[in-house]
Amino acid sequence: MRIAFPFAAIVGQDQMKLALSIAAVDPSIGGVLVFGDRGTGKSTAVRALAAVLPQMAGADCPYHCDPARPDEACEICRSRQKGKRAQKAVALPVPVVDLPLGATEDRIVGSLDLERALSAGEKRFEPGLLAKAHRGFLYIDEINLLEDHLVDLLLDVAASGENVVEREGLSLRHPARFVLIGSGNPEEGELRPQLLDRFGLSVEVKTPTDLKTRITVVKRRDAFERDPAGFTATYAAENAAVRDAILAARNRLGGVAVPDETLEKAAQLSIRLGTDGLRGELTLMRAARALAALQGDGAVLWPHLASLAPLALSHRLRRDPLDEAGSATRVERAVGELEAA
Amino acid sequence: MRIAFPFAAIVGQDQMKLALSIAAVDPSIGGVLVFGDRGTGKSTAVRALAAVLPQMAGADCPYHCDPARPDEACEICRSRQKGKRAQKAVALPVPVVDLPLGATEDRIVGSLDLERALSAGEKRFEPGLLAKAHRGFLYIDEINLLEDHLVDLLLDVAASGENVVEREGLSLRHPARFVLIGSGNPEEGELRPQLLDRFGLSVEVKTPTDLKTRITVVKRRDAFERDPAGFTATYAAENAAVRDAILAARNRLGGVAVPDETLEKAAQLSIRLGTDGLRGELTLMRAARALAALQGDGAVLWPHLASLAPLALSHRLRRDPLDEAGSATRVERAVGELEAA
Amino acid sequence: MRIAFPFAAIVGQDQMKLALSIAAVDPSIGGVLVFGDRGTGKSTAVRALAAVLPQMAGADCPYHCDPARPDEACEICRSRQKGKRAQKAVALPVPVVDLPLGATEDRIVGSLDLERALSAGEKRFEPGLLAKAHRGFLYIDEINLLEDHLVDLLLDVAASGENVVEREGLSLRHPARFVLIGSGNPEEGELRPQLLDRFGLSVEVKTPTDLKTRITVVKRRDAFERDPAGFTATYAAENAAVRDAILAARNRLGGVAVPDETLEKAAQLSIRLGTDGLRGELTLMRAARALAALQGDGAVLWPHLASLAPLALSHRLRRDPLDEAGSATRVERAVGELEAA
Amino acid sequence: MRIAFPFAAIVGQDQMKLALSIAAVDPSIGGVLVFGDRGTGKSTAVRALAAVLPQMAGADCPYHCDPARPDEACEICRSRQKGKRAQKAVALPVPVVDLPLGATEDRIVGSLDLERALSAGEKRFEPGLLAKAHRGFLYIDEINLLEDHLVDLLLDVAASGENVVEREGLSLRHPARFVLIGSGNPEEGELRPQLLDRFGLSVEVKTPTDLKTRITVVKRRDAFERDPAGFTATYAAENAAVRDAILAARNRLGGVAVPDETLEKAAQLSIRLGTDGLRGELTLMRAARALAALQGDGAVLWPHLASLAPLALSHRLRRDPLDEAGSATRVERAVGELEAA
Amino acid sequence: MRIAFPFAAIVGQDQMKLALSIAAVDPSIGGVLVFGDRGTGKSTAVRALAAVLPQMAGADCPYHCDPARPDEACEICRSRQKGKRAQKAVALPVPVVDLPLGATEDRIVGSLDLERALSAGEKRFEPGLLAKAHRGFLYIDEINLLEDHLVDLLLDVAASGENVVEREGLSLRHPARFVLIGSGNPEEGELRPQLLDRFGLSVEVKTPTDLKTRITVVKRRDAFERDPAGFTATYAAENAAVRDAILAARNRLGGVAVPDETLEKAAQLSIRLGTDGLRGELTLMRAARALAALQGDGAVLWPHLASLAPLALSHRLRRDPLDEAGSATRVERAVGELEAA
Amino acid sequence: MRIAFPFAAIVGQDQMKLALSIAAVDPSIGGVLVFGDRGTGKSTAVRALAAVLPQMAGADCPYHCDPARPDEACEICRSRQKGKRAQKAVALPVPVVDLPLGATEDRIVGSLDLERALSAGEKRFEPGLLAKAHRGFLYIDEINLLEDHLVDLLLDVAASGENVVEREGLSLRHPARFVLIGSGNPEEGELRPQLLDRFGLSVEVKTPTDLKTRITVVKRRDAFERDPAGFTATYAAENAAVRDAILAARNRLGGVAVPDETLEKAAQLSIRLGTDGLRGELTLMRAARALAALQGDGAVLWPHLASLAPLALSHRLRRDPLDEAGSATRVERAVGELEAA
Repeated sequence: MRIAFPFAAIVGQDQMKLALSIAAVDPSIGGVLVFGDRGTGKSTAVRALAAVLPQMAGADCPYHCDPARPDEACEICRSRQKGKRAQKAVALPVPVVDLPLGATEDRIVGSLDLERALSAGEKRFEPGLLAKAHRGFLYIDEINLLEDHLVDLLLDVAASGENVVEREGLSLRHPARFVLIGSGNPEEGELRPQLLDRFGLSVEVKTPTDLKTRITVVKRRDAFERDPAGFTATYAAENAAVRDAILAARNRLGGVAVPDETLEKAAQLSIRLGTDGLRGELTLMRAARALAALQGDGAVLWPHLASLAPLALSHRLRRDPLDEAGSATRVERAVGELEAA
Repeated sequence: MRIAFPFAAIVGQDQMKLALSIAAVDPSIGGVLVFGDRGTGKSTAVRALAAVLPQMAGADCPYHCDPARPDEACEICRSRQKGKRAQKAVALPVPVVDLPLGATEDRIVGSLDLERALSAGEKRFEPGLLAKAHRGFLYIDEINLLEDHLVDLLLDVAASGENVVEREGLSLRHPARFVLIGSGNPEEGELRPQLLDRFGLSVEVKTPTDLKTRITVVKRRDAFERDPAGFTATYAAENAAVRDAILAARNRLGGVAVPDETLEKAAQLSIRLGTDGLRGELTLMRAARALAALQGDGAVLWPHLASLAPLALSHRLRRDPLDEAGSATRVERAVGELEAA
Repeated sequence: MRIAFPFAAIVGQDQMKLALSIAAVDPSIGGVLVFGDRGTGKSTAVRALAAVLPQMAGADCPYHCDPARPDEACEICRSRQKGKRAQKAVALPVPVVDLPLGATEDRIVGSLDLERALSAGEKRFEPGLLAKAHRGFLYIDEINLLEDHLVDLLLDVAASGENVVEREGLSLRHPARFVLIGSGNPEEGELRPQLLDRFGLSVEVKTPTDLKTRITVVKRRDAFERDPAGFTATYAAENAAVRDAILAARNRLGGVAVPDETLEKAAQLSIRLGTDGLRGELTLMRAARALAALQGDGAVLWPHLASLAPLALSHRLRRDPLDEAGSATRVERAVGELEAA
Repeated sequence: MRIAFPFAAIVGQDQMKLALSIAAVDPSIGGVLVFGDRGTGKSTAVRALAAVLPQMAGADCPYHCDPARPDEACEICRSRQKGKRAQKAVALPVPVVDLPLGATEDRIVGSLDLERALSAGEKRFEPGLLAKAHRGFLYIDEINLLEDHLVDLLLDVAASGENVVEREGLSLRHPARFVLIGSGNPEEGELRPQLLDRFGLSVEVKTPTDLKTRITVVKRRDAFERDPAGFTATYAAENAAVRDAILAARNRLGGVAVPDETLEKAAQLSIRLGTDGLRGELTLMRAARALAALQGDGAVLWPHLASLAPLALSHRLRRDPLDEAGSATRVERAVGELEAA
Repeated sequence: MRIAFPFAAIVGQDQMKLALSIAAVDPSIGGVLVFGDRGTGKSTAVRALAAVLPQMAGADCPYHCDPARPDEACEICRSRQKGKRAQKAVALPVPVVDLPLGATEDRIVGSLDLERALSAGEKRFEPGLLAKAHRGFLYIDEINLLEDHLVDLLLDVAASGENVVEREGLSLRHPARFVLIGSGNPEEGELRPQLLDRFGLSVEVKTPTDLKTRITVVKRRDAFERDPAGFTATYAAENAAVRDAILAARNRLGGVAVPDETLEKAAQLSIRLGTDGLRGELTLMRAARALAALQGDGAVLWPHLASLAPLALSHRLRRDPLDEAGSATRVERAVGELEAA
Repeated sequence: MRIAFPFAAIVGQDQMKLALSIAAVDPSIGGVLVFGDRGTGKSTAVRALAAVLPQMAGADCPYHCDPARPDEACEICRSRQKGKRAQKAVALPVPVVDLPLGATEDRIVGSLDLERALSAGEKRFEPGLLAKAHRGFLYIDEINLLEDHLVDLLLDVAASGENVVEREGLSLRHPARFVLIGSGNPEEGELRPQLLDRFGLSVEVKTPTDLKTRITVVKRRDAFERDPAGFTATYAAENAAVRDAILAARNRLGGVAVPDETLEKAAQLSIRLGTDGLRGELTLMRAARALAALQGDGAVLWPHLASLAPLALSHRLRRDPLDEAGSATRVERAVGELEAA
């Protein structure tokens, strides 16, 4: 296992770090899409955040089920529950699964265990990457180059938290609750609007343009690669602070109130921007609640909405041929107008 | 098994709820097509309706045959009937089968049981999703993205109530009577007119535009996800009322009269709209009969036709380049004209 | 086995009923192509006609060979004939085989019996749909959506009455004499002229436009579906009359004379219409002979030709860009001119 | 085995009958291409000619090798020759092999005998259609619809008289000397010039246009189909005359002289027409020699060339955009000019 | 084994015969590409040259390794060398391997011996056509119709003299030194410039246009086919002279000097013609050395270069849109200019 | 094993030799892309450099792990480390792996060992070309003809130094640290910008244009091929000098300082050229450090950057439609401007 670059040592890229933290607080928000240039450390950030999170307790099953959530346990765990058999739990790092280029659908979804089928004549499921990613992160680089039906499949599973397998004579379902992180470069081909809409949040990352930042990035990168352990140690305290903030927010999340006025504002914003369906405001409300929890606030208020609206809504806009502004700008303008109204 | 969102808690979407209820009363009406924006709760509504329906008695066979309809029993049940062997029946929830993205044709239709073939050298059929959906609902999201031949196949089976399998050296048929629900977004590609015509009813759903509805939807959605059991309990009585209405209508259906004047009106409407074939007025008559049964009326009259004509006819219109109105509007206009005549 | 809609209860559609009856009298006429709207009962009519025909005696072989025609017996029956072994014959309904959507070529043609190959290491043929259709009807809905090479294959077999199999290491032939019925909607793509020419007769069916017919159709359809057995009983006598007429015509067929003047008229008609090859007039002559036999006439005369010319010739015309009339109209015009000449 | 239509009963179609007879006299001429309308009896003529030819003596091997030509014997026959084992010969009808639609490449070329491979673990060749056609005719209907690489393969084998197999771990060769007959309709897509050039002769068949011929064709066709054996008996003497002429010509062939002036004329004709390569005049010379043999002439003279030039050269012309005449006409014109010169 | 047409009996086609002879003297020159009309005897010439060459001594291994070149021995021969086991050598004709149409990549490259794998569970290599062609000729007709990656593969192996196999779990290399002869018709599609450049020499063959030559070709061709053995005997002495010349040249090759002035001229010619890379002049130098050896000259001088420049350089020119002359003409012009300079 | 052409005998091509030497000093620089004409000795240079490098110590495992870097050991070596078992090391030449044309993905990545799977029913990994290339060079000729997903896969592995396998039911990772060398001709199709950016350095090679160089190249090439061993001996001392320089640079590399001013200059250069991301300046810094080490300098200064900027940056420029200069020229111009500033 390679040492991850320390989350706290990432220079700039505040929106990406915010989006990832919110998804870590409330994974039901639905995936993060990261647009932008190559070489800006997207994959590094995901791995860094996962490394910051505390180890988790996992059942002794192929899906490392969460002992605290028996309702979403896999069939193996369920049968043990029924049998009242004691479950062993082990401590595991939060998984970050990469979809390597050329991974085949059967490795993503899982497949028939051929070895078993041939030797013992027994049909057994061999879990795939979706099972590995359960309770962690699934990272797809260049998601716009992935075939549409695979993106759709990943979004389906991410949304439902379950992997439903109907292939090769297998018919089963297992828990697969993860945060889907997709990165892509819009210049290389775009995602269909339907797919965009299914991501919770989106952020755009750019190459920093001031000299000082660039030099700092290059130096830290070089220092880390020359001595990973030593470099990481320097950031231990800062990383711990990030972890504590996220854990605290998770605990606080259930208690954060969402006043009707806030919901009204979210709806007004969506109507003003003409987004389809209600997924936009639902996500905006949840993300704002997670942000309030992170900041220790007891209720979701306008400022929470305002700061997260670009992340939750800009990838849901229809293209407006008469408005040349980027979509994030259009969201910010609508936020400003609503504030002024 | 996840808890379904309560049917009675669905805000608005009256046409979709009406179409689903009618299909539940008389499944021979032939499937429902739901057009419209994503994120408007189409899949939720189907699942909600199925959860409202009472459990059904099913034979102990792979197709959970209906003990009350021996004429459509599968081969296994038939051979038991001949052998005068007693049939065991079990209580089962009404199935809702999702066609997951990437489901292969062999999983839909059923296929050779490879395990059995390899181990015992025996050719046995392994039922597919069509068998699972028997007596329930088969839901296809984004049906316009499915390959034409699969849509055709599903419609064929839905129309005949039988799955005829001729593949992999297998040759058999089994009952597969289900309500096909397809949802799609016309912006992502259209269905061929031939396929449209084979659906019984169609409805269009839209994102609600008044603030109050939107806030209610978001609040109910959030409340349900935070506490599914508690939220559902709140709607128990209302859900029971829906169930009772459907069951009553099923019983009344055979007794509802269809006067010749009503048939004449239906034919006049179809001729005026220039729909091909007689499937339009046949469906309209049946749907109107189911509506009369739901409303406790003893005969099908003009108002029943009038209110269902857009659902039964609008997807059967030919595109009229000189008439820019949507097809539902054109049907409503024809209804108005006929009324005035 | 489902009960078929009674042939005698079909409202209108006289041309289609005529074409099917002629094919039942002389199956060597070569298949019937039915153009037109969906929902006009094409498949219903085929099934209805087959149900009207008397059961047939079939040998105890996979091809239910005709004991009365030892010259076209399959290899199994031939070897029994040689061995002077007694043949058992059973009574069978006239088969109507549907080509279900998605049927694979190996199921149509027949294929290696994999089960046998794997278990007993023996290469045995497993008959396909062509074998099932022997001595009956093969119905293909939406034939224009079928791949050209499959249509060609079906026509080849229909024309030769034999299925020649050269695949998967198998090399055999078996009788496959059937009436091919293809239905299609010209708006969904056309058949190649070469394929059209290979069909014996063609008819066009349309949605009836008078109110009374439409209402009758809808009522009969609904009545049948609500009580198939009762409804069918009502038409028993009328159906028997149809059967008797066809059987009588088959017996009379060999005795019907075809005077040279009639052949000359048929040739003149074909020349006037510019059809390629001689298949048009050969078919017209045979169809007219079958019609004479049905009507109890002793010789084929001009009126027989005149009434069948549109069915035998209109799908063999080349498109004439200067003549906007439909091809049936063009045939009728030529018939009129010849009559006048 | 079905009875073939008598060769002598074919009405008209003299060019096609001539080309087939010449190929029967000297099969090294290289295949016959028949262009033209469907329904003009092309396949009938090939089958009729083969039925006219006397039975041939064949070795007891999968290729029915010719005992009179030990130089082209297959490996099995060769090893028997070496072993001085006596060869049994049987009398066989001249084979006519149809390439059925959908025949796969492995059935054409031959393939690994899977049964043997699986049961005995032994790699044995299972001969294909090319082996069946050895010493007879291979007929391909609609050759223009066949994939180019298959046409190429068939021509290669026809030209070399050997089938070289390099596939599935098999590496062998066996004799496959046959006359390739391809029929096609140029309106349905053309053959590449390279493929055209590899056919020896080409003819065009047309629907007869005089009434009397048409009536005769239809009557004979109908009479044959109603009583194949009786009809054939009527033509026994005429068929025997055809057979005798071909056998006599085969015997005379070696003794027919080809004067240098004749070769010069053939070359002048080819140069005047601008055909590529020398295959045109080589074929013309050989076909003319066969014709002289058929006519009992001792030497090939100008009239032989003149009458066969259209058959041997017209499919080898390059398209001339300034000359609207058909290629047969262009050849005839060149023949006339040369005669006049 | 069929008798080859005698090399000495080939009429005209001097460039092709020169190119083949040079490749026979120094096979490292890199393959010959033959452009031009079909039916001009390209394949005949290759086979004729191979038949002229003396039999070669070959080791008793699947690659018939050359006992005189232990450095390029296969693994089997190497292990025998190490074991000091005596090698048996047998006399073999120079192989000419045809790439038959439809040969699959596994038969070209070689593949896993399935029989062995299935029966003995052992992974053994089964040599392909590349192994068969070792030390001889590999002939590809219509090379422009072969897929690019196969041409590339063949050129790679021809250039390196080794077949590197990395497929089906096999990883091995064996000697495969052969002269690649490709023939093609530029009208049927061109080779990519990259592929052209990898051939050593190219020649263009044309249909002869004078009457006398044509008649001679046709007469010899016909005489050969009627009596192969007798015809070949007539040319025995002339064929022997060709063989002696090639063998003598091979012996002399190492002693032929290449003065710097000659290299300079070759470079000047390439620069003047603008060919990419140095492969052109390297090939020209080697071909000229082989020509000098054939002619018994002790050093490579300008006339050798001049006569071979069109063969070595014309397929390496870039297309010049302003210069309509063919590429051979352009090379000849450059030769003339350099001579004049 | 063939003798490689001596690195020191390569005439000219200084940029390519520089790029290869830098990659040999610091393989983390990320691959070298070589553009340009065929026949300019690209593959020769790679093989020559590898032959110059000293043999390396490798563990006795399928990946010849580096005993000096236990942190990147494979699983086999790790388990031995844990078991405290002594590791045997052997001396191995630096591997140069060619990606042969037609190599399949499973041979690149590695695959299931089928032999083992079939015989022992055991799932074992069979290492592919990526494993073979570990610690050496992987050379891809005509990389622009390789499928994008394979290039991406190779770059992924080259960047991470690990091969992650998720296919055929296998899930493992092994070290695969190599220098990727891709050669291509931009005229034959370009790489996507995303792929270009992932290569560390790029160089362009051209056919030399002065006579003397060309003659020298041709003479050395010819001399080498006629006597590889003798020719190589002549360059032994020069080759040794190259080796010593590289080894010395590797030792010095860790001690070379990178002053902030140098990083600032690198950033200014990248900003001025508008390259995306920071990969350009990171690579430039590292390459310059390797160059300083090769030259024995203690710190990276402007001249190191200046001389390497074209190699590190020119393939990262966006196309500028207003600037017709080549990208290398644009980089040199920016270097000049920065120098002047």
